[in-house]
Amino acid sequence: QGILERLDAGEIVIGDGGFVFALEKRGYVKAGPWTPEATVEHPEAVRQLHREFLRAGSNVLQTFTFYASEDKLENRGNYVAEKISCQKVNEAACDIAREVANEGDALVAGGISQTPSYLSCKDKTEVKAAFRKQLDVFMKKNVDFLIAEYFEHVEEAIWAVEVLKESGKPVAATMCIGPEGDMHGVSPGQCAVQLVKAGASIVGVNCHFDPETCLETVKLMKEGLQAAKLKAHLMSQPLAFHTPDCGKQGFIDLPEFPFGLEPRIATRWDIQKYARRAYDLGIRFIGGCCGFEPYHIRAIAEELAPERGFLPEASEKHGSWGDNLSMHTKPWVRARARKVYWENLKPASGRPYCPTMSKPDGWGVTKGAKELMQQKEATTEQQLKELFQKQKV
Amino acid sequence: QGILERLDAGEIVIGDGGFVFALEKRGYVKAGPWTPEATVEHPEAVRQLHREFLRAGSNVLQTFTFYASEDKLENRGNYVAEKISCQKVNEAACDIAREVANEGDALVAGGISQTPSYLSCKDKTEVKAAFRKQLDVFMKKNVDFLIAEYFEHVEEAIWAVEVLKESGKPVAATMCIGPEGDMHGVSPGQCAVQLVKAGASIVGVNCHFDPETCLETVKLMKEGLQAAKLKAHLMSQPLAFHTPDCGKQGFIDLPEFPFGLEPRIATRWDIQKYARRAYDLGIRFIGGCCGFEPYHIRAIAEELAPERGFLPEASEKHGSWGDNLSMHTKPWVRARARKVYWENLKPASGRPYCPTMSKPDGWGVTKGAKELMQQKEATTEQQLKELFQKQKV
Amino acid sequence: QGILERLDAGEIVIGDGGFVFALEKRGYVKAGPWTPEATVEHPEAVRQLHREFLRAGSNVLQTFTFYASEDKLENRGNYVAEKISCQKVNEAACDIAREVANEGDALVAGGISQTPSYLSCKDKTEVKAAFRKQLDVFMKKNVDFLIAEYFEHVEEAIWAVEVLKESGKPVAATMCIGPEGDMHGVSPGQCAVQLVKAGASIVGVNCHFDPETCLETVKLMKEGLQAAKLKAHLMSQPLAFHTPDCGKQGFIDLPEFPFGLEPRIATRWDIQKYARRAYDLGIRFIGGCCGFEPYHIRAIAEELAPERGFLPEASEKHGSWGDNLSMHTKPWVRARARKVYWENLKPASGRPYCPTMSKPDGWGVTKGAKELMQQKEATTEQQLKELFQKQKV
Amino acid sequence: QGILERLDAGEIVIGDGGFVFALEKRGYVKAGPWTPEATVEHPEAVRQLHREFLRAGSNVLQTFTFYASEDKLENRGNYVAEKISCQKVNEAACDIAREVANEGDALVAGGISQTPSYLSCKDKTEVKAAFRKQLDVFMKKNVDFLIAEYFEHVEEAIWAVEVLKESGKPVAATMCIGPEGDMHGVSPGQCAVQLVKAGASIVGVNCHFDPETCLETVKLMKEGLQAAKLKAHLMSQPLAFHTPDCGKQGFIDLPEFPFGLEPRIATRWDIQKYARRAYDLGIRFIGGCCGFEPYHIRAIAEELAPERGFLPEASEKHGSWGDNLSMHTKPWVRARARKVYWENLKPASGRPYCPTMSKPDGWGVTKGAKELMQQKEATTEQQLKELFQKQKV
Repeated sequence: QGILERLDAGEIVIGDGGFVFALEKRGYVKAGPWTPEATVEHPEAVRQLHREFLRAGSNVLQTFTFYASEDKLENRGNYVAEKISCQKVNEAACDIAREVANEGDALVAGGISQTPSYLSCKDKTEVKAAFRKQLDVFMKKNVDFLIAEYFEHVEEAIWAVEVLKESGKPVAATMCIGPEGDMHGVSPGQCAVQLVKAGASIVGVNCHFDPETCLETVKLMKEGLQAAKLKAHLMSQPLAFHTPDCGKQGFIDLPEFPFGLEPRIATRWDIQKYARRAYDLGIRFIGGCCGFEPYHIRAIAEELAPERGFLPEASEKHGSWGDNLSMHTKPWVRARARKVYWENLKPASGRPYCPTMSKPDGWGVTKGAKELMQQKEATTEQQLKELFQKQKV
Repeated sequence: QGILERLDAGEIVIGDGGFVFALEKRGYVKAGPWTPEATVEHPEAVRQLHREFLRAGSNVLQTFTFYASEDKLENRGNYVAEKISCQKVNEAACDIAREVANEGDALVAGGISQTPSYLSCKDKTEVKAAFRKQLDVFMKKNVDFLIAEYFEHVEEAIWAVEVLKESGKPVAATMCIGPEGDMHGVSPGQCAVQLVKAGASIVGVNCHFDPETCLETVKLMKEGLQAAKLKAHLMSQPLAFHTPDCGKQGFIDLPEFPFGLEPRIATRWDIQKYARRAYDLGIRFIGGCCGFEPYHIRAIAEELAPERGFLPEASEKHGSWGDNLSMHTKPWVRARARKVYWENLKPASGRPYCPTMSKPDGWGVTKGAKELMQQKEATTEQQLKELFQKQKV
Repeated sequence: QGILERLDAGEIVIGDGGFVFALEKRGYVKAGPWTPEATVEHPEAVRQLHREFLRAGSNVLQTFTFYASEDKLENRGNYVAEKISCQKVNEAACDIAREVANEGDALVAGGISQTPSYLSCKDKTEVKAAFRKQLDVFMKKNVDFLIAEYFEHVEEAIWAVEVLKESGKPVAATMCIGPEGDMHGVSPGQCAVQLVKAGASIVGVNCHFDPETCLETVKLMKEGLQAAKLKAHLMSQPLAFHTPDCGKQGFIDLPEFPFGLEPRIATRWDIQKYARRAYDLGIRFIGGCCGFEPYHIRAIAEELAPERGFLPEASEKHGSWGDNLSMHTKPWVRARARKVYWENLKPASGRPYCPTMSKPDGWGVTKGAKELMQQKEATTEQQLKELFQKQKV
Repeated sequence: QGILERLDAGEIVIGDGGFVFALEKRGYVKAGPWTPEATVEHPEAVRQLHREFLRAGSNVLQTFTFYASEDKLENRGNYVAEKISCQKVNEAACDIAREVANEGDALVAGGISQTPSYLSCKDKTEVKAAFRKQLDVFMKKNVDFLIAEYFEHVEEAIWAVEVLKESGKPVAATMCIGPEGDMHGVSPGQCAVQLVKAGASIVGVNCHFDPETCLETVKLMKEGLQAAKLKAHLMSQPLAFHTPDCGKQGFIDLPEFPFGLEPRIATRWDIQKYARRAYDLGIRFIGGCCGFEPYHIRAIAEELAPERGFLPEASEKHGSWGDNLSMHTKPWVRARARKVYWENLKPASGRPYCPTMSKPDGWGVTKGAKELMQQKEATTEQQLKELFQKQKV
């Protein structure tokens, strides 16, 4: 059954987790460029991660094609671009995802994301051409449906949806925005409306913010759709990091990004709470983004097992709410084998010399400066500095 | 070259990271029992993790045989014991480790750890027999050397060393103790002396405590050996969790163990500092235990690259001290591409409603009660309670 | 010169600090009732506190008549009401304030605050009569001007201003609200407009929130007045507690109120920053409320000394930005004798087992429940519970 | 009844709180010099503070003669030395204390503390002469007993006790040391033994450390005395600041000293716990030092009211364990009117951008450097730097 059949039937669809962060820690992705050439260089590592998510309960395996547009691979990943073509990266990603999906009952989703071309002022035609290049591979490899994800600008997201719709396959679209909306100030509600009008059947958010903030944003999208009398399925794939302190552009601006985020990592219990709240909010495509490891996806599947009627395969190595501790030799550890314990635990950081919140960075941490950064015409640091000084922020 | 040839030549030997924690998160190990039946059930997952550590710079691959003694597999892992014999688990572990070691220049170390038999008062003969059963597999599979690790009682560790020495292969021995010493109050210095006298060529600590505490303990071991005019190589494989607040028995007693430890996870920079301090202290076998992921091992290899003259393979996907951020579009993220930034960052937890330290659990958090727990004659909770009440702690 | 002459001339007027909290710690006020019978019982203690504020730089001494309406003294302070009449408390308060004001160049302001009668649904006539009883004393004792402060409901504040205006003396009005507005949802801007229309020459906020939140609220008031093309002087008298985590009703709902607020107490440097921001925002009547001790008021006077041209008397016992440490024997303590040090210090709590933020209390911490609590018709706990259950919040 | 009669009879004697910190906040003492010329300049302020402590339950009023030796007043307080003689300061302090003591049932204790002369290498004769000058005033004014307090070096403390013993009056001696002992490494146990041998009837600690650390130190003193088969009464007057993170020299070295200590201030409940633990440890002279305000002293008196059979006067304005909240209009605030609530509250700091612990300062935060600082022969910064560099710490 396809993604829309499942969602239309009221099923809960569980997404997968974050590939770039997980594979960076495993040694196969470079932070900074974050490009997915590992599909060609180390397919066994990509395959293993897909397999772990499948085992954890994912119903959708996204091709590992994040930032795999040609301009991005050339621009940032030039250390690999010569040897590995954009097409090869995308093809290998499709093959690996399909191979693992066939080991279970999962769908393969081809994924595209925002492009450097858009920010460097190229026009609609060029940006769409970049998307189309990836889409061609997805069609050749016959993925089950398509996801346009990680867009900060609704305009570019709409272009992406328009291209993907040409395929005739179902299209999901998620933006990496918070409750304040996209980088030009378009509200989440308006973003959702425009994406659905462009052809998306599923809309929501991914990345940049923690589960709580993402759900708040999806809620605004839902309300926007209701007000516009539009129908669409809702989707959320947040960070598995706590980010109550971040600004409009999310965790990128936090001083800890990307190499000091460890103290913010969500526990499995945090994710169970997220899954429940997402479900209660009417979201039925529930997954994760950066920071989500297989055990976080399993937490979604376990939380929603009563509604779905089954546990994921990986639960054979996990007890509900810690009950695998019930045989521990120490009575005080045995006492942790219950829901009320983990539900209420306020985990300590073991870092008394560190604060609990950070001020987001920015040029002098000024709002104006950050907004300038978003202007498409300012591509170099020098230009930005000039703009910045002009405004005397 | 064997382990002793390398260490005798003054080489730095990098260990690997923690299998049970990493594979628990990947869905292949059950927390609580923590047994390694995955070597038979899911060899590809074990192989992949070995490969990641090799790629990150590990010179030693430990067989994934933690808690794989027959009594432990029967006792706790009875949900698998019927189908998978102790021998099979150990054999598969050796085969996988050897296969991956051959992909690089790594040694294979057969590892044994403390047994339930010791705590349930069985005698020296029985405990030694359990060790010997694992050793037989290691000899058959011809591992390069042997590690006795994760012992809380020096008496049992000595028995382990004695058995392993029968093989003629080099033996390393690490205890999971802190500066206060073993569960019977034997000081780290005394533990080291006794282990060396029993035949260990390498001694140190693993697990239970954070890097700082482990180094403090190894320092005490070093001083004990010096005072006794004994020579041995030093080794440390700490947790990758911050545990400044734990008591004598380490992180097991922290309320966050094992499912709420995320905020305590060390960053790569924490580990670089650990590697440097370990080196300065004269430790030359430097690795990790629970919580150490491949990128933590890479951090050791990168920190000590100047001394060793080379970087690990996985550094092709990593820049020194964040320099892979130097091409980021945002100037304030580019500003993070330097050592002084990451070295001084005090990472926030994003959890303002949580404390930064916890009180270790225990029966009424009393010292007396915990010590009672260690008494071999008290095996049941009832017996412990009675002992506890007798002492009116 | 009167208060309006000073403000009209562009002078900065410094208010005083919080009497009920300071005198509670000194042993003369009972937390809970918070009534000011100390003016009769222990005049020397009240006099001394006035004197300290005067010495610290206060230009206005408020009569210690907080909650000194007859209904309040009867209602809550019945343990003293029999022996000490409302009139006596108010008269003594005026006498003490005048005595100390004459020691310097300070004005005496008669102060009234919200009444239990309003919340228990008595009508406008009765509430106004209560205010008038206090006003009679103020007129007899000839205070210099009047302050209506600590109102959660703008309706009651307006009634207070109307009564006070009858006197012909200048009237200031401050509400204990945050950016969300009063308990019926009237915005700060609207509150300011209505108070000015009722006759207040000075408007602003006091109590309930920390300096940052109060300034945000006054800013909204200022914008409301500008939009309505009304003119008035602005005033702020915030808490000297950090309360980033409180809800609509401020610090009362924080679990630490009122006996565990110590870790939240502002430093003198926090208050210097507040004074500067208040000044930059155009506020010219700058003082404090609960938590403000004499040294906090001195911090306002020292920060604004460049604008005012003089230091307060108490600065003879204080160095600017810590320069009194310049003769310390320890070089590292001497190094603290400079502005950049104290300005940037992030002071530790010494409480690693405590969180840094709290969830405000409430009936099940629900917004709905708290709003119910505000409904005038619900005066008993039973009624509230019923309302609460009806709404199934 | 005298101090020894009371203690010998098993009575609990409650000390007073910290004058220099309280009066600094009130505007009468200058941080840095910390000298008590306020006894002459503003006797009403000193009198009021004594009165508040008396009312809170103090049985002993210490003359406000801290750092009032002639050399100190000349050395640091030269801005006042010309106009106000050492003798006048001490005499006024005695008169004020006696006046207030007569309002109740309190004893007056004349207090002396460490001198700059000792640190600047003057000899025993000179240092003793300085103590004797203060003692002459105490004898003329006929104080009830004598306290030698705030000594970092046991040698100087012994000289102080020897001088005070000449008077024939009972002598108490407290050092401002922690469990590591005095600045020359003399252990707390040894310090206590030497002080008792020199003639002190009461020994203990004051200042520099939080209640928990002080009690640990007094416990070591008690054990030292027991081992030496000596008898003495025990006394503790700790800080009312949480300082789990300070080093050997206590809170002076914390980066927050002295103007950023607010987040560390103890609650009344912290002090009740301290009073109970002190009592359980056998300490019968229980008071406070810097940071102790009147309500902290009241907390001691309230905690020990069951043993003593009465409450202090100031308890008329306080309910046991918050029961004065039982009439609050909000049910969730009423819910705080009980012991279990306040006993278990972990108060938040409201400062999520601040850490919970600090690293103590020092010259490069090195232990060696700090020890150098203590050497008597190094009096100038230059000399210290040279010593420091010589040792290449």
